[in-house]
Amino acid sequence: MPDRFVVSLPDDRLTAHLEALADPVPDNVDFVEWHLDGPAPADRIDIAVLPYMSVDSGRLQWLSSAHIELVQSQSIGYDGIEAALPPGLVYANASSVHETATAELALALMLASQRGIDDFVRGAERGEWRAGRHPSLADRAVLILGYGGVGKAVEARLAGFEVGRVIRVASRAREDAAGHGPVHVHGIDELPELLPQVDIVVIGTPLNDSTRGLVGVAELAALPDDALVVNVARGPVLDTAAVLAEAGRLRFALDVTDPEPLPADHPLWRAPGVLISPHVGGNASAMEPRMARLLRRQLGHLLAGEEPENVVLRS
Amino acid sequence: MPDRFVVSLPDDRLTAHLEALADPVPDNVDFVEWHLDGPAPADRIDIAVLPYMSVDSGRLQWLSSAHIELVQSQSIGYDGIEAALPPGLVYANASSVHETATAELALALMLASQRGIDDFVRGAERGEWRAGRHPSLADRAVLILGYGGVGKAVEARLAGFEVGRVIRVASRAREDAAGHGPVHVHGIDELPELLPQVDIVVIGTPLNDSTRGLVGVAELAALPDDALVVNVARGPVLDTAAVLAEAGRLRFALDVTDPEPLPADHPLWRAPGVLISPHVGGNASAMEPRMARLLRRQLGHLLAGEEPENVVLRS
Repeated sequence: MPDRFVVSLPDDRLTAHLEALADPVPDNVDFVEWHLDGPAPADRIDIAVLPYMSVDSGRLQWLSSAHIELVQSQSIGYDGIEAALPPGLVYANASSVHETATAELALALMLASQRGIDDFVRGAERGEWRAGRHPSLADRAVLILGYGGVGKAVEARLAGFEVGRVIRVASRAREDAAGHGPVHVHGIDELPELLPQVDIVVIGTPLNDSTRGLVGVAELAALPDDALVVNVARGPVLDTAAVLAEAGRLRFALDVTDPEPLPADHPLWRAPGVLISPHVGGNASAMEPRMARLLRRQLGHLLAGEEPENVVLRS
Repeated sequence: MPDRFVVSLPDDRLTAHLEALADPVPDNVDFVEWHLDGPAPADRIDIAVLPYMSVDSGRLQWLSSAHIELVQSQSIGYDGIEAALPPGLVYANASSVHETATAELALALMLASQRGIDDFVRGAERGEWRAGRHPSLADRAVLILGYGGVGKAVEARLAGFEVGRVIRVASRAREDAAGHGPVHVHGIDELPELLPQVDIVVIGTPLNDSTRGLVGVAELAALPDDALVVNVARGPVLDTAAVLAEAGRLRFALDVTDPEPLPADHPLWRAPGVLISPHVGGNASAMEPRMARLLRRQLGHLLAGEEPENVVLRS
């Protein structure tokens, strides 16, 4: 074990949060700045923290310019990373960092669409008091598609809203645990029978070969009129052409789209009943304190000679 | 006790929900329709249900055209009713009916303003992908002003969101109970010391002489920059001129306004950081099933010779 530990940070966003940790960073840890737009500033880096939301394969190539113990991403999703990562690296994702803000945004989108906030904002632009009846989140049947960290965090936030029913779906049926106790998770093969029973679907799966296009023409057709589909996962999990075909009969609230960013002239912008946020699920003030806490835990693991947490790839 | 009970309904909104009750309405209850736009359709009415959101003093005068055991409002607030109610009547409000939808809207407004949904909707109108950083609800200090049914329902919904701190304020300091156990409620006299500590204020008080203008110039000035004020109570609890003066430094999300409805040319429509919904706190699909359940309980009370619940006025 080296005397001094080196952690590279891509910017100064985490600095104040690292200084404010209840469990302080040990004195033998040095922080260096590295944007991954050139060679590493040290021969050896214990933890190289990747930039947030701008990790292309060009930047990842610079990871081969030093000995790096752990590559720490600031995202949960890592679709496309495996192919671009230089060999010999251990890559951890940012599970525990973004679930809070992402599930919060899922609720923000869900509530906004249910209660007509998007319509009120458009009304306000015209000085129009558009009173009327909207569907509550209360009493609705909500299907959570993908029961990992984000799915569980969505369920925790639904707990206070008197929803009629929560239905959990993951790749395989299983018994799992929620905050309130054991729960049943349905398998993806049960989706055709489940969809006609639900008012709201929240998509929180990772993007991989088995989830690309998971919600398409057949799945949307199975939903009852005026059902809402919320996507806080990745754009390609939901088929854009199918969304455009069903918009109006169904409602959509999408933090992610395919393509992304959405070009100015894309028809999704003006499709009826479609509410779009610009991929800001994790991009909120909840991120940095939780990222600083994850980094502190990773430092603790490495200093203790333990395996780091959240390791999802070894190249 | 009469052989048959008569309940008047102002419209057919509740019919399907009364038929779907788990505890069915007894056979000796007759429902009649009465809009209160003319004399009662029977000499004796056991429960006269008022129209929702259109109860002026002209309509209320028709309540003297029959013997009425209980006047059942469909609203929680009853500001202005006492002066307009003919003598000799027992008036129950709709506590237990609207807390669900109103607290839900408070969260919808709070999350929409925190996470920038209003800005995204305006961006979508122009095909603009406005990515950027927004403040989470997570980690924020939230002050609930008014700790009755709506305030408690707001707290129940905040439970899953990892908020930093919940501060409860009511007319007098007291110990009270929330879903998770005993809680301390601060007195309104402590507001000046509390406001500088909070990120979000949710107003859920009734409107009466002591709450009119409760949140005005001094209270808003005490809030830190970028704090959010959510009003789901009644418009006049929050001073409109003070809102206009602080909009931009503070954010506001208002389901109720003063005046109301807001005229098309009112400056509040275009004030920066002000999100407005058109008094739809209780006007959502959660209302009717809960109103039907309250009516069923009131029937049970009267049939058993018990006092009705929710009695707030006796004229």
